[in-house]
Amino acid sequence: MRILGVDPGLTRCGLGVIDAGPSRTVGLVSVSVATSEAGDEVSHRLAAISDAIEHALDEFRPDALALERVFSQHNVRTVMGTAQVSGVVMLAAERRGIPVALYTPSEVKAAVTGSGRAAKAQVAEMVRRLLGQDVPASPADAADALAIAICHAWRGGGGSGSGAAPGAVVTPAQRAWAEAERAARRRT
Amino acid sequence: MRILGVDPGLTRCGLGVIDAGPSRTVGLVSVSVATSEAGDEVSHRLAAISDAIEHALDEFRPDALALERVFSQHNVRTVMGTAQVSGVVMLAAERRGIPVALYTPSEVKAAVTGSGRAAKAQVAEMVRRLLGQDVPASPADAADALAIAICHAWRGGGGSGSGAAPGAVVTPAQRAWAEAERAARRRT
Repeated sequence: MRILGVDPGLTRCGLGVIDAGPSRTVGLVSVSVATSEAGDEVSHRLAAISDAIEHALDEFRPDALALERVFSQHNVRTVMGTAQVSGVVMLAAERRGIPVALYTPSEVKAAVTGSGRAAKAQVAEMVRRLLGQDVPASPADAADALAIAICHAWRGGGGSGSGAAPGAVVTPAQRAWAEAERAARRRT
Repeated sequence: MRILGVDPGLTRCGLGVIDAGPSRTVGLVSVSVATSEAGDEVSHRLAAISDAIEHALDEFRPDALALERVFSQHNVRTVMGTAQVSGVVMLAAERRGIPVALYTPSEVKAAVTGSGRAAKAQVAEMVRRLLGQDVPASPADAADALAIAICHAWRGGGGSGSGAAPGAVVTPAQRAWAEAERAARRRT
């Protein structure tokens, strides 16, 4: 199953494409960051990000799109732009009949590292190991997009709407962590 | 100049179309409320609202789209949906080359009633008078959409990006209020 993970943002929007195989294997297909100019009007900026999303959907034809769920507990201005971007991302997927799954930041961290409170660097490092990259994807938005895609591969399965209940994450995440650790040891 | 005012919302999205003429005259063209089912997935709901916006843009061919600027000071869940809707609304306008203007709720209230703290009922009543309606538009989202369109007619002029500075509202709003009052007296 091919998954497009999106870390939504108006200034930088991470786009990570992976292929998920059997036994929780994941392979990197593409990773990029769509950007828009901070000085432009918001409608222009949304169109720029939307263009990049549509291009990725056309080029990579994912079976599912996984998106970070936006909360308003952080910077208000940033969050509004992020929510607007998540709206146009969901619309682009819906228009192509691609199922959308939403995950909270802590669900993504827990799926990839085993801890919902993992530091960003730890998430990026686990993504690097799982995808067999030499260096972690950069900037953070790119690594986060890949983490969201991996989270969906391991939790969402067949692309079921909006992910499992938060309580269901613990066991598969711990299993994934153990497997990833083993894989990393084999590689070094 | 024809203006589509939008009061963004995922459950109810107000759409008000007016024609703005010389001497601050405004005429009602259309008012409606787009809805989506609360139980549906967000991506479905965004597509439903987007369909209604695109239909209104195609049918009424407005010269400008005016939209309420979203703040995150209220209910977090509602605000995220509202921001996502505002994203798809701005994108639809941008795709058609229609300029988008954003106004805060208090800018809209001040433009229409002379007070940025006016009650919802007062805004609806002023909109009713200004457009020569027998009864105020209902639900509130419909009246709000018309108020946003009127705000743009009086403040935005030729559809300039994002409205004037907040401080600039007082004089035109007071003038508009006085004119509206006179118009209402002539009518009764």
